[in-house]
Amino acid sequence: MNITFLGTSSGAPTRQRNVSATAIHPETGRGWVLVDCGEATQHQLQRTRLSPLKLKAILITHIHGDHCYGLPGLLASCQLNGRTEPLVLVGPASVWAYLQAVIKHTELRIEYPLEFVEVSSQLALELDECGVTATRLSHRVECWAYRLDERQVPTGLDTERLQREGVPPSPVYGRLQKGERVTLDDGRELNGEDYAVPAYAARSLVVGGDNDRPDLLAGACEGVHALVHEATYTEPVLQKVGPEPQHSSALRVAQFAQSQSIPALILTHFSPRYRKVPRRSGDASLEDLRSEALSQYQGDLFLAEDFDTFCIGRDGRVQRLEP
Amino acid sequence: MNITFLGTSSGAPTRQRNVSATAIHPETGRGWVLVDCGEATQHQLQRTRLSPLKLKAILITHIHGDHCYGLPGLLASCQLNGRTEPLVLVGPASVWAYLQAVIKHTELRIEYPLEFVEVSSQLALELDECGVTATRLSHRVECWAYRLDERQVPTGLDTERLQREGVPPSPVYGRLQKGERVTLDDGRELNGEDYAVPAYAARSLVVGGDNDRPDLLAGACEGVHALVHEATYTEPVLQKVGPEPQHSSALRVAQFAQSQSIPALILTHFSPRYRKVPRRSGDASLEDLRSEALSQYQGDLFLAEDFDTFCIGRDGRVQRLEP
Repeated sequence: MNITFLGTSSGAPTRQRNVSATAIHPETGRGWVLVDCGEATQHQLQRTRLSPLKLKAILITHIHGDHCYGLPGLLASCQLNGRTEPLVLVGPASVWAYLQAVIKHTELRIEYPLEFVEVSSQLALELDECGVTATRLSHRVECWAYRLDERQVPTGLDTERLQREGVPPSPVYGRLQKGERVTLDDGRELNGEDYAVPAYAARSLVVGGDNDRPDLLAGACEGVHALVHEATYTEPVLQKVGPEPQHSSALRVAQFAQSQSIPALILTHFSPRYRKVPRRSGDASLEDLRSEALSQYQGDLFLAEDFDTFCIGRDGRVQRLEP
Repeated sequence: MNITFLGTSSGAPTRQRNVSATAIHPETGRGWVLVDCGEATQHQLQRTRLSPLKLKAILITHIHGDHCYGLPGLLASCQLNGRTEPLVLVGPASVWAYLQAVIKHTELRIEYPLEFVEVSSQLALELDECGVTATRLSHRVECWAYRLDERQVPTGLDTERLQREGVPPSPVYGRLQKGERVTLDDGRELNGEDYAVPAYAARSLVVGGDNDRPDLLAGACEGVHALVHEATYTEPVLQKVGPEPQHSSALRVAQFAQSQSIPALILTHFSPRYRKVPRRSGDASLEDLRSEALSQYQGDLFLAEDFDTFCIGRDGRVQRLEP
């Protein structure tokens, strides 16, 4: 299960960071899912191996422009490039109203099946590779987090149980794994299906939208391998800006992730003031966000850059992949 | 008077070409004008010296997405970056309806003065540096070309007339140029204002939208230094595609420019099939468009690339500037 960041800036694009869009894709490169679709997401995709024609679903967290202004163009280009496969769009009702208005006013033709599913706390969307549920967040407009749970985990053999039962490794294991019935030398009859277990624990992650109350995600984050959450400001800047924008600080998100023992935390959606390489000493820096988060959180912490890809391995560990 | 192409692809962006947007800017780098605003125009601008905060007017040719999906994001970023100066938006009524719908549905706040002017054949917009008029084109939706005529041409001295009148070059010229009254040695009294002429002929150009009838621009192109026009296809491809998309071929635009003796023709809005470097021999190439145009047109021909800047010099000649 891979996560590729297509935009990590809040509000407006910078030269280094586009506005929000995050791709969740299986290692196989087959059908994938997009969370949010800021302007120029289709342009960012052209710099990756992800094909818009293999996109299965777009999940929009909320209606603000930096999370959805790339939607009409991406859908239009799918049409121009011959897409015929259905596409699912999930989000608040305002997203569908916005899209319908754009379609009407700009005479946009979309001929492939585009199905809208209004997000709610009852959402239970089953795509081939994953299931999707949603949790309401706290922001200036209706805003949601999406949890993706891996489906179709391959079947493995419960070798621990076999060894406990005195069946040592042998070609019998291979036959059992295929689900065959096997008679052992000692006369015991074993049914492979009785020893079938998932080859590894299904992977899961939560990708949040804009949110000033990370604690709302406590339930959604149970057992997840990674949380992707906005950290628009450091705590001192958040205090200065005031609560009105309803964003989180790195501090608050990190405290939450630590309290829930979430093994990996990926921060994103940084205010453009935080530069990777500050112009002058004393300028705001990404390192300010990092050190604030590290002061609270002992898990695996990452600050996302555009085009970063993270892998949740079969062992559940999150790693940043080499470009 | 400079012209910078921010997008030269039709319909969808490619890795090399963004969708339509063209900046017209004085050499001084002060207030400038944008014709069309496809998705990611604000991203393209970040790679130039043109500041959205100095943008004076946006002229939209028509409502199709590849010409206007960048508008909401650009306006939003102007707001976020503290713009207070007024901005003029010109286009068909559908553009304003589209923008108003996006503003409403996405709760976009624009607090600087944004004035909409509906385009018509009576348009006579006076900006500081140029006047703008419009000509209706032929396309699937209401579509326009904009003519920009330079204003504020500096005043020069009519030295030819002075020499005809027997006043040889001397420091007197400098005083006359300042508009002073001068008494010559022979007793004649000259008023500098009588000898004031424009330092050079005001520059002008026409930037068209999508259009299958270049001949509609005959009146608008009278005396212009350059025509910027779409050449979506070569003529054989246009014949194959059929007339339904209502685009022009390089052949037809070149024939028109030749018939009007337009001194410079800049083609743009190329179908993504035309690649600068074709993958295989026999594939469609930009050279197909160029050779088709050259077969009809003897003026200065250019095929625009993204980030190309062309200068209309004070001598009226169009040149591609070195990057």
